[in-house]
Amino acid sequence: MDERAYFERLDSTASDPSELFEHFEQRSVGEYTAHVLPSARHGVERGTVILDSADAIVRGYPSIPRVLALDAGVTSFFDSGATVFAEEKLDGFNVRVVDVGDDGPLAFTRGGYICPYTTARVRELLDLGEFFEEYPGKMLCAELIGPETPYTTHDYEEVDSHAIRVFDVRDRESAAPIAVPERRDLCARYDFPQSRLFGRYDRSEATEAVWSAIEELDAEGREGVVMKTADSDSMVKYTTESKHHDELADAFSLPFDLGRDFVFSRITREAFQAAEFDESDERLRERAHDLGESILLPAVDTIRKIESGGTVGERHRVRGGNDEIDALLDHLRDLSLTVEVEEDYRENGQRVVEFLKVAESTTDRTTYYLEGGTYDE
Amino acid sequence: MDERAYFERLDSTASDPSELFEHFEQRSVGEYTAHVLPSARHGVERGTVILDSADAIVRGYPSIPRVLALDAGVTSFFDSGATVFAEEKLDGFNVRVVDVGDDGPLAFTRGGYICPYTTARVRELLDLGEFFEEYPGKMLCAELIGPETPYTTHDYEEVDSHAIRVFDVRDRESAAPIAVPERRDLCARYDFPQSRLFGRYDRSEATEAVWSAIEELDAEGREGVVMKTADSDSMVKYTTESKHHDELADAFSLPFDLGRDFVFSRITREAFQAAEFDESDERLRERAHDLGESILLPAVDTIRKIESGGTVGERHRVRGGNDEIDALLDHLRDLSLTVEVEEDYRENGQRVVEFLKVAESTTDRTTYYLEGGTYDE
Repeated sequence: MDERAYFERLDSTASDPSELFEHFEQRSVGEYTAHVLPSARHGVERGTVILDSADAIVRGYPSIPRVLALDAGVTSFFDSGATVFAEEKLDGFNVRVVDVGDDGPLAFTRGGYICPYTTARVRELLDLGEFFEEYPGKMLCAELIGPETPYTTHDYEEVDSHAIRVFDVRDRESAAPIAVPERRDLCARYDFPQSRLFGRYDRSEATEAVWSAIEELDAEGREGVVMKTADSDSMVKYTTESKHHDELADAFSLPFDLGRDFVFSRITREAFQAAEFDESDERLRERAHDLGESILLPAVDTIRKIESGGTVGERHRVRGGNDEIDALLDHLRDLSLTVEVEEDYRENGQRVVEFLKVAESTTDRTTYYLEGGTYDE
Repeated sequence: MDERAYFERLDSTASDPSELFEHFEQRSVGEYTAHVLPSARHGVERGTVILDSADAIVRGYPSIPRVLALDAGVTSFFDSGATVFAEEKLDGFNVRVVDVGDDGPLAFTRGGYICPYTTARVRELLDLGEFFEEYPGKMLCAELIGPETPYTTHDYEEVDSHAIRVFDVRDRESAAPIAVPERRDLCARYDFPQSRLFGRYDRSEATEAVWSAIEELDAEGREGVVMKTADSDSMVKYTTESKHHDELADAFSLPFDLGRDFVFSRITREAFQAAEFDESDERLRERAHDLGESILLPAVDTIRKIESGGTVGERHRVRGGNDEIDALLDHLRDLSLTVEVEEDYRENGQRVVEFLKVAESTTDRTTYYLEGGTYDE
C-alpha cells in the first residue's frame, strides 16, 4: 500500500508515515486485506481501517467524552449562546456501515472488524442501495440494539428481537459529520430508524432539559443522552443511574472478567451524579442500596453457580440465515472467545442460536478460591 | 558493604548477590546508612533492611496470605490433624522492634523506614531493655493501634489514645518465628501486651470456631483473625464484613487516592464471604445495602466538601514529646506526603498535634470534574 498517499489522506498529527503506520495491524478479512488501527493514535480514531484493494479509508467513530458534573459540563463544554441538541444514547453495539467494494455494504465494529452478522442485519433492516448510490463517500453510524444480538442484550420496550438506530452520518474518509438537522432529515428521507431527538436547547436551559430527559430515561431503564452542537463537531455524553447499576451488575456477574475494569469508573459516575442531583439523604441512601445490590448480588450468584458446577459467561440469542450465523460464530471464535452453543433450532424460517461466551477468568479464579486458594497482598 | 557475606546470610532464592542486591535501595536514616528492599524479591521479604554499620539484618515481616472461602481455606491450608491457633488480627500499624545499634531499640515500618514516633512509643510502652539483653537477635513484631496514631485511626474500646500489641516474635536475621505457645509465654513474662488468642483448635473444628470469632469481632467493628500452625510457620488470615466496609468507606472518602486500588479486592472478599455465610436473601440484601453505603456516601461527602472549598485527606492526632513529633512530621514529609498541621498544643505535659495528610489526587481530579472537565473513554 502507498503509505505516503494514505498518510496525506488521513491528516493525522504524526510527523511522518512510519510514526503513524507502525500502529496499524494487518488483518485478512475474507477476501480483503485490511490495515486496522486498534487504538486511537496521532489524531486518528480507533478502528480506522484502510482497505487498499478498494482504495478506501473507513475512519473510526470518535470517542465521545463524558461529563461527570452535568451543569458544569454543559457550561464548560458549549459556548455561551450555543444551541445544544440532545439525542438519546442507546445501549447497543456501535457499527459503521459503508459501501466500499463490489460485495455490497459492510458493517465495521468499533475495533475495525467486519461483523458478518451485523452486516446481514443492516442489509436486511436498512434500504442501503439508494443511499450509497447517492452518498458513496458517507458512512452510517448506527447502533444494533435489542435482546437478540451477539454483543449486547439490553431490552427496549419497542424492540422484540433486534433493531438498528442511526445516530450519525459522517464522511467515510475524514469522519466529518453532517449537521444534526440535515442528518435527521436525510435519515427520514431514507426511512432509516433514528435515535430519539429530545430537543434543541439554548445552553442556558440545556442542563434542566437534559436532566429531565435523564430522569425519564432512567425510569425506563435506558442509557443516557449525547449532547451535540448543531454541526455535530462537539459531542459529550451523560448517563442514567440505571445504566451505571446495570453495567455494574453485568460486570460483577463476571467479576474476574469484567468487574475490575468497570467498577471504579461507574462508581465515580454515580458519586458525581448523586452529589449533583440527590437532594435528600433518603434518595442518596436509596441509590447507595441499589448500587450495593448491583455489585454484590450478581457476584454472589455467580460464585454459587460455579460452586454447584455451572458455567458462567455472557448468554446471547441471535437469529438469521444459516450461513451468516456460521460466519458469526467463526468470527467470535477468531476473536479468541470461547463460545458454547446451547441451542440451535429453526423458527419461522430462520435459524436461532443461543450461545454462551464463556467467562474463563471468572470460572478459573472463582474455582481456585472456592477450593481454598489463597492470595498474598 | 560485603554483598557476598550478606547474600549468604539472607539465604534467598537468587543465584548470585547482584541478582538480589540490584533491588535494594540505599537510604540515609539519621546517622545510619540502610540498604532496604522495597518489595519482596527472591524469597526475601519486603522491608528487609541491612544496617552495615551495625553488621545487622532486619528481616521484613512476611506477607500473610488470605483465604476468601473460609472452610475450604482451612482444609486446604492446614494438614489434616494439625492444630490451628487463632489470634486476633488488629487494625493498626505493623512495626518490627529491634535493638541493633548503640542508640536503643528502633521501630521499623513495613516499608523498612525507622519511624521516630513509633520508636518513641514502643520505648515508652514496652519494657524493652531486659528483653533485648536476653534476646538480642530477636525482633518483636507489633501493631500500633488506637485513634491517636500517625497512620491509622481505628477505634478500639480498650484504647483511649494508642497502644501496642505484640503478635509475633521472630529471629531478626532469618525471620524464623517462635512457636505460638512459647511466644505467648515469653510476652507474658515481659508484660508485653499481646493480640488476643481465641484458642487452639483441631483442623476439623477450626472453621466453626473461627467463624464464631469473626462474628464476635464483626459485631465490635474489629478486623479479623490470623490462623497459625503451632510453630507459626504457616499463617493465613480472614477478615470481617465491618472491616471490608470500613476500608471501602475510607477509600471512597478519597476516591482518586485510594478508591481505585481498594475497591475490587474488598468487594471480592465480601462476595465470597456472603456466598459462604449469608444464609438468607434478607441477610445478603442487608450486606449489599451496607456495602453500597460504604462506597457511595463517603464519596458524595467528599465531592460536596471539595465543592464548598474544603480540603480533604487523612486526619490524624498524635501526642508525645516535642522532638519526636517534629521528627515524625519531618519523616512524613520525607515520604513526599503533604502534611498540614491543623492544631498544635500542649495537654498534660505532652505536645498534641492534629494534622491532615492532604489527598492531592482526590482534590485535583474532583475539582477538575466539578468544573465540567471531561474524560474520554
